[in-house]
Amino acid sequence: MATILGQNQYGKAENRVVKITRDGDTHHIKDLNVSVALSGDMDDVHYSGSNANVLPTDTTKNTVYAFAKEYGIESAEQFGIHLARWFVNSQEPIQKARIRIEEYAWDRIATSDANSKFIGSDEVNHSFVRKGMETRVTQITYDGQNWEVISGLKDLIVMNSTNSEFWGYVKDKYTTLQEAYDRILATQVSGRWRFNWTDDEQRMPNWEKSYAETKKHMLQAFAETYSLSLQQTLYQMGSRIINHRSEIDEVRFSLPNKHHFLVDLEPFGLKNDNEVYFAADRPYGLIEATILRDGVDARIPVDMTNL
Amino acid sequence: MATILGQNQYGKAENRVVKITRDGDTHHIKDLNVSVALSGDMDDVHYSGSNANVLPTDTTKNTVYAFAKEYGIESAEQFGIHLARWFVNSQEPIQKARIRIEEYAWDRIATSDANSKFIGSDEVNHSFVRKGMETRVTQITYDGQNWEVISGLKDLIVMNSTNSEFWGYVKDKYTTLQEAYDRILATQVSGRWRFNWTDDEQRMPNWEKSYAETKKHMLQAFAETYSLSLQQTLYQMGSRIINHRSEIDEVRFSLPNKHHFLVDLEPFGLKNDNEVYFAADRPYGLIEATILRDGVDARIPVDMTNL
Amino acid sequence: MATILGQNQYGKAENRVVKITRDGDTHHIKDLNVSVALSGDMDDVHYSGSNANVLPTDTTKNTVYAFAKEYGIESAEQFGIHLARWFVNSQEPIQKARIRIEEYAWDRIATSDANSKFIGSDEVNHSFVRKGMETRVTQITYDGQNWEVISGLKDLIVMNSTNSEFWGYVKDKYTTLQEAYDRILATQVSGRWRFNWTDDEQRMPNWEKSYAETKKHMLQAFAETYSLSLQQTLYQMGSRIINHRSEIDEVRFSLPNKHHFLVDLEPFGLKNDNEVYFAADRPYGLIEATILRDGVDARIPVDMTNL
Amino acid sequence: MATILGQNQYGKAENRVVKITRDGDTHHIKDLNVSVALSGDMDDVHYSGSNANVLPTDTTKNTVYAFAKEYGIESAEQFGIHLARWFVNSQEPIQKARIRIEEYAWDRIATSDANSKFIGSDEVNHSFVRKGMETRVTQITYDGQNWEVISGLKDLIVMNSTNSEFWGYVKDKYTTLQEAYDRILATQVSGRWRFNWTDDEQRMPNWEKSYAETKKHMLQAFAETYSLSLQQTLYQMGSRIINHRSEIDEVRFSLPNKHHFLVDLEPFGLKNDNEVYFAADRPYGLIEATILRDGVDARIPVDMTNL
Repeated sequence: MATILGQNQYGKAENRVVKITRDGDTHHIKDLNVSVALSGDMDDVHYSGSNANVLPTDTTKNTVYAFAKEYGIESAEQFGIHLARWFVNSQEPIQKARIRIEEYAWDRIATSDANSKFIGSDEVNHSFVRKGMETRVTQITYDGQNWEVISGLKDLIVMNSTNSEFWGYVKDKYTTLQEAYDRILATQVSGRWRFNWTDDEQRMPNWEKSYAETKKHMLQAFAETYSLSLQQTLYQMGSRIINHRSEIDEVRFSLPNKHHFLVDLEPFGLKNDNEVYFAADRPYGLIEATILRDGVDARIPVDMTNL
Repeated sequence: MATILGQNQYGKAENRVVKITRDGDTHHIKDLNVSVALSGDMDDVHYSGSNANVLPTDTTKNTVYAFAKEYGIESAEQFGIHLARWFVNSQEPIQKARIRIEEYAWDRIATSDANSKFIGSDEVNHSFVRKGMETRVTQITYDGQNWEVISGLKDLIVMNSTNSEFWGYVKDKYTTLQEAYDRILATQVSGRWRFNWTDDEQRMPNWEKSYAETKKHMLQAFAETYSLSLQQTLYQMGSRIINHRSEIDEVRFSLPNKHHFLVDLEPFGLKNDNEVYFAADRPYGLIEATILRDGVDARIPVDMTNL
Repeated sequence: MATILGQNQYGKAENRVVKITRDGDTHHIKDLNVSVALSGDMDDVHYSGSNANVLPTDTTKNTVYAFAKEYGIESAEQFGIHLARWFVNSQEPIQKARIRIEEYAWDRIATSDANSKFIGSDEVNHSFVRKGMETRVTQITYDGQNWEVISGLKDLIVMNSTNSEFWGYVKDKYTTLQEAYDRILATQVSGRWRFNWTDDEQRMPNWEKSYAETKKHMLQAFAETYSLSLQQTLYQMGSRIINHRSEIDEVRFSLPNKHHFLVDLEPFGLKNDNEVYFAADRPYGLIEATILRDGVDARIPVDMTNL
Repeated sequence: MATILGQNQYGKAENRVVKITRDGDTHHIKDLNVSVALSGDMDDVHYSGSNANVLPTDTTKNTVYAFAKEYGIESAEQFGIHLARWFVNSQEPIQKARIRIEEYAWDRIATSDANSKFIGSDEVNHSFVRKGMETRVTQITYDGQNWEVISGLKDLIVMNSTNSEFWGYVKDKYTTLQEAYDRILATQVSGRWRFNWTDDEQRMPNWEKSYAETKKHMLQAFAETYSLSLQQTLYQMGSRIINHRSEIDEVRFSLPNKHHFLVDLEPFGLKNDNEVYFAADRPYGLIEATILRDGVDARIPVDMTNL
């Protein structure tokens, strides 16, 4: 045989599960998009089409919904851990499970004053409006012994309207860019961070609190850094996370430089004193880097933040 | 000539303008996507290609950016009014201008405790994070005499996890749907509302306050209606707006019924007590209607809420 | 009551139906996305939530699939006619049905030489690759007496790399654009054409042939027009259709001017002799117009080509 | 310092370049989307914000456009090789360049019969319509010594309407799927293949011919495989490429199983004899694998086909 099989995986992707928990009249919601990828002893299904080792992707979908009932959804990470453990432990041929989850956040809808007096509360307890901001993501991988949990977010758009410069760069024969001493810095954050929890013997992080704190530190570093380059800002964002969150050892960001070009208003006899900008779509600068706790190995793949 | 020209319009679409206003260290941001459509005496450019009456679309773009400097951006509506008036009044052949604007909202980023003590504030004053929730929209039309302002929003996703039923419907030979006495009701609101301000002699509405209040009433009506059909909820949303906002005479909604199907867990020996749902993509029910103040004529086009 | 109900409609949108017809070993495929919108005596469901007149949207979905079996899918138009007639004729409260259909085209996959000798054919008869080009669309409306059929296409991207100029336009204080005597003209065509077939007594057009011929004439007019403005090209495209296709009385186009800007290479000591272009995303010129057979009334709504 | 910098790269992404080549009246078009990512001695820009080693992303954009003039665009691969070589060889701090390119294909528009007689040709020589089918992609990486070229495609949708089965799989307590003996097999191909050309001393492949032949073999393998699992079909597609194209050593596919569910028409008294299908969106099975020439090492990253 001139060709052989390399890395392979399969499963059901994008299972949209919504879990409502009723606490009296007060409802709680978890809204996830769960993708399962399994690998193991799968040569035969590729070479001959024998499905003897194949748990159907449809079954992996059913398992997602059944587990939402059986275990509830405490956090995306905890839910992914339940799923990964099950697939690896229950099926002999499956040696590794990777669960990817997107989570969509919801706010409660405040009621009208009249109504809130009546029901003694500021909010209707079963009505929600979806926050549009970022999508929270996580990836759980389990091989029967060790865990790898990489969480993060995507599509969080941020902007500093000042405190950003760009100058002192290399100039070659194709360079026409003018130096900037006060520019807008805007980006759409895609970030991933890897936890140092790898073993059932270790104490598990508080996933919900970790996410909230990590996002807070990341946003603060973005806001508080006086930036001479987007790379510098990126490094500060990652470094701030690692310095404040002991459960995280590695961070990777993919930060498109969403250019806001100052519009030339001189032809119209107007002065543009850093007021009016054109928000461009393409092309955009793209800055990507990994920040590590000193002494640990990098394990987040280069392209993962671009998925 | 066997063929003739009918309705026509032209202009530059999707001009992305960001306006920063500096109030000392505190910056304010307006982030718009402005589309210009002009019409008037334009037969020649269609029949013979003569551009003698054509103000270039590139000029309409320049005007958007120049006006952001000259007038500032108090609200999307006010900005559109400046633009529409200019095009109709300054160019003889242009008899009508239609300005469409999308607006993206931003929040401030809170600073870290340490930093906030230092700068004496809870927020960095030039750092923003984009709210993802809805996109605010407006359309201003001016013919040299009368104004028509239709504002609204799109992509606002809402859900009631209870207080929704659906039964007592027509059953024909193709009907298989089971009646539901406690279901999730979720939709992605696209709404438009028309103001009764049509004349420069009238007092202009407070556009920013009107938007905030209209959205609030709409959300409350969604949350507080015990729903027997999405049509009923839609009518309550529109009716509530008209009853509370005297500046608005007409509302139109396009509400996709974002189905959340209860997953059948019985094959796995589990009971699904309105807990675990599959959030479906397509197909979806689509409910559309206009609600009018009694006595006024409908003017919002049928398809406008789908744009 | 201070508010009343205006125009309203409901139904199941985006029913994705694929129909395979087996002609011996040779399979044929029709791939549609069908959206149903019904209107009529629907006051109660809006005012009180009574569903007594409401055929569920789920039933309209079932009907789409059942009709694919019962009638087959000869063409999108014919399929829509079957559906619209059924809903209006079978349900007393329903007075009007509007069926919108998108159609996706497929090509056959050619087999390898070795295989084709064996099976005596150039193609495997059950294997298809989806053409990505345009999406074909149609809208059928029926009120129990008269038909309105509006067909068309969207997302067909075309370009002339020469034979386009733009000069002689109005210049105001905001005009900076340079005149162009040889530019790229590119657009993403969205077009709709209305048939003069309105009555079951008339002979029905050959929908498939009409589409192929209309698209051909439209493309040829685009290619063969020496263009002084995109409006002129648009008018030629519409006019050519009406002059060649007697079954069509009205055409409307929405043509974004997909700007291709000549890149300034002089800073690098290079001459750009109409060779290297930057393909811009936003903003874009947007040219929209209706072309009519002389003497007929316009009925295609202004925004329909933007849906 | 508690944190250190790991892998990092930067550059301008999504430079949209269109190159027109005029061969008398006959024009030729190349339409690319080029993304540049550079890495090397970049610690300072991350740690301190010093840009002394940073060639601006704006310059990398300018280089793309200048090179389109200086070298022309023979193929996406050859163009990427020119760019990668330039960045690594011309800038001391840059040790590695990765160029990613998407290419969009265009067809010529056939002229009307009358016109073609006049100009003596079947086609207008400067008019094009964009093929929508797949997007061709390539990635060129250069470190000053060795080349890695990975080409491929995405968004190619294919379907077999028969000759696909799925049975004999594992059944656990969450399995409800029925076995299938004649089903539709449809997927949206994302594939990448790695060339064994790594060195300027080797003879370079004919990139255009290689692409056309590779796509042909891949499609034929899809069409001609009687499939017992999508994994089997995937393996045949990759294996066929490696067996027919000596310049390729490794192939990776990501194949979503675009489910087409047979609609249950029995409630309506109809038999669905493999005729009427519902084309589902989410969830979908996702099958991914690498196929290697025996004896070579795998180098295409696991997630690359999902970008």
